[in-house]
Amino acid sequence: MSNLKFTVLRTDPSCKARTGILELPHGPVETPIFMPVGTNATVKAIYHEKLKEIGYNLILANTYHLYLRPGMEVMKDFGGIHNFSSWNGNVLTDSGGFQVFSLSGLRKIDEKGVTFQSHIDGSRHIFTPEKVVDVEHIIGSDIAMCLDVCTPPDIDYRAAKEAWRITKNWAERSIKERNSIEDFRGNLFGIVQGNFYEDLRRESAETISSMDFPGIAIGGLSVGEEKSKFNDFLAFTASYITMEKPRYVMGIGSPDYIFEAVENGIDLFDCVLATRMARNGTVFTDDGPLVLKKAIHKMDHRPLDENCTCTACRRYSRAYLHHLVKCNEMYGGMLLTEHNLTYLYNLLKRIRKSIEEGTFLSFKREYIARYYGK
Amino acid sequence: MSNLKFTVLRTDPSCKARTGILELPHGPVETPIFMPVGTNATVKAIYHEKLKEIGYNLILANTYHLYLRPGMEVMKDFGGIHNFSSWNGNVLTDSGGFQVFSLSGLRKIDEKGVTFQSHIDGSRHIFTPEKVVDVEHIIGSDIAMCLDVCTPPDIDYRAAKEAWRITKNWAERSIKERNSIEDFRGNLFGIVQGNFYEDLRRESAETISSMDFPGIAIGGLSVGEEKSKFNDFLAFTASYITMEKPRYVMGIGSPDYIFEAVENGIDLFDCVLATRMARNGTVFTDDGPLVLKKAIHKMDHRPLDENCTCTACRRYSRAYLHHLVKCNEMYGGMLLTEHNLTYLYNLLKRIRKSIEEGTFLSFKREYIARYYGK
Repeated sequence: MSNLKFTVLRTDPSCKARTGILELPHGPVETPIFMPVGTNATVKAIYHEKLKEIGYNLILANTYHLYLRPGMEVMKDFGGIHNFSSWNGNVLTDSGGFQVFSLSGLRKIDEKGVTFQSHIDGSRHIFTPEKVVDVEHIIGSDIAMCLDVCTPPDIDYRAAKEAWRITKNWAERSIKERNSIEDFRGNLFGIVQGNFYEDLRRESAETISSMDFPGIAIGGLSVGEEKSKFNDFLAFTASYITMEKPRYVMGIGSPDYIFEAVENGIDLFDCVLATRMARNGTVFTDDGPLVLKKAIHKMDHRPLDENCTCTACRRYSRAYLHHLVKCNEMYGGMLLTEHNLTYLYNLLKRIRKSIEEGTFLSFKREYIARYYGK
Repeated sequence: MSNLKFTVLRTDPSCKARTGILELPHGPVETPIFMPVGTNATVKAIYHEKLKEIGYNLILANTYHLYLRPGMEVMKDFGGIHNFSSWNGNVLTDSGGFQVFSLSGLRKIDEKGVTFQSHIDGSRHIFTPEKVVDVEHIIGSDIAMCLDVCTPPDIDYRAAKEAWRITKNWAERSIKERNSIEDFRGNLFGIVQGNFYEDLRRESAETISSMDFPGIAIGGLSVGEEKSKFNDFLAFTASYITMEKPRYVMGIGSPDYIFEAVENGIDLFDCVLATRMARNGTVFTDDGPLVLKKAIHKMDHRPLDENCTCTACRRYSRAYLHHLVKCNEMYGGMLLTEHNLTYLYNLLKRIRKSIEEGTFLSFKREYIARYYGK
């Protein structure tokens, strides 16, 4: 049961990197693609129309946040997030598994579901896998993630195995719930867990791959572990996931991690990093991150990036952007957000081009060397 | 000595309200007009290009703030605020008199000038009238305000008289300094003071009017006094200022105050209210201010204002804007800022139209009645 069509266009001859077209209810998306995070049905500090102008047609929102605020009564009243937020592109909703793990004061997981406390008012709520699918159906998600059990990098084998057992059970129940909703228009993606244990990761990847999901996500990575561990477990896990479906790594969004993911045949990723960094005054460039607060930029007439097409780079100097950041001016956060999202969109465009030309790995090598100033 | 041309086009038959064209170094401005405040060389939370799209061609910046940050070294290096901030419209700079009065921890005024402490790092600085003219020349202000002594509404006659005496002396010294700068390209405006004493106000208005200023401002109003007192002193003071030059009331920007000012033949006004209110979730409408935090808006599908052309009104419901404000999302502040500035620009357009049609007073009556829900 699927409302998407995924076509792989080209695969790099030397690795698993691939380009494709993901056709979703609100239009096509070229992959691999980065998805900006719009937690509260708004990507922070940027106009919807700017997102569209840059080229984005798939953003992420959080079931956990939207469930608490504006709440399901409002979502129902507006017929879903697209109408409520006036965003006519695609929306992927995270299930809340990660938010409950990272934001909630209280979190109690059992076979039935997860009990948690709202970070807004402390009220208690229960998410079951069935309820999350229902909520995502009301939200009208184009891609809806299953409820899963996300675990920190330091738990023991027994706990990791139990978390995966519950995640698997919830995946089955999520599919059942989805199948019971006659007019379900979204696409329910499964999530691979298994912590940092190879046998659990392999079992999880193979099991989730074999289930009736139109897309597969890797969860539980980029949760605080070292980068080499991330790389190893990404490559290992990805190798056991079907290549037939779109593959998504959750929670990554810096250029170095993106290259790593693409090399392993990942098509989708999301992260708050690009927008959060921007609001704190740091931007991506081909020469690595630029911290605009630094006094070195005070009189610099150059744009952030000679080749970038965003408003900040077309119109403003580093000196003016430095000034805005120093003054804590909202316009600084707005311009730098537009820059980082433009930068990542264009980086993915360059990556897709390199895959089409069969030069992905050399592009990666050159890019990473320059990014780290080597 | 003037680099402006001011042409009165139409005066209302029943009051002093008038339309005009103010030609400035960076293009013409239709009057009466509201000037958005861009303290740090940025009108908070709005793209420069949006300001231009709305129709604004004259914004305000603060000498006090720019002097402290980015500082004059940067301003010189960039050849002024237009190049530094990439704003190609006109800029009026406040002299710092009011900021020193309202922001500075320490303020010591004597004949020579004012000693103050930076609100950023506590460092000590001196502004003399000459120095302020020099600084505004470096900034490249299209309209530069003289340094004045701004006083609170509760001081005695003796103190008010002394403040006006110094203001007058500083006005003369400001003109002398301006005349000594060969390539001074801006327009130095004088400021009327006199606190809330009629004889001082009259003397100040007549004296500043008679001096070699191409424009006259009324300062020291809207500093905490009651509205009726503001109205009385505005009308009284304005009646003694020349009608030949552009007339500016400093620090007002709500619809009711704007109508009052226009009725008294005021051409220019500025205020942080529109943009500050917006960031706090309140917007102007013909039916009075709308506080978006209120739960009443939670499911309201209507736009803020049926007739408004801003992004918020064209694209979003009150419910979505309520949600953004409740979530403290920057996009809320951005959209509401755009709304309030669009609203005020269009209100002034309606006011100018009513003056052209000779119906200003009836428009004022109807507008105010609806605004206060009568």
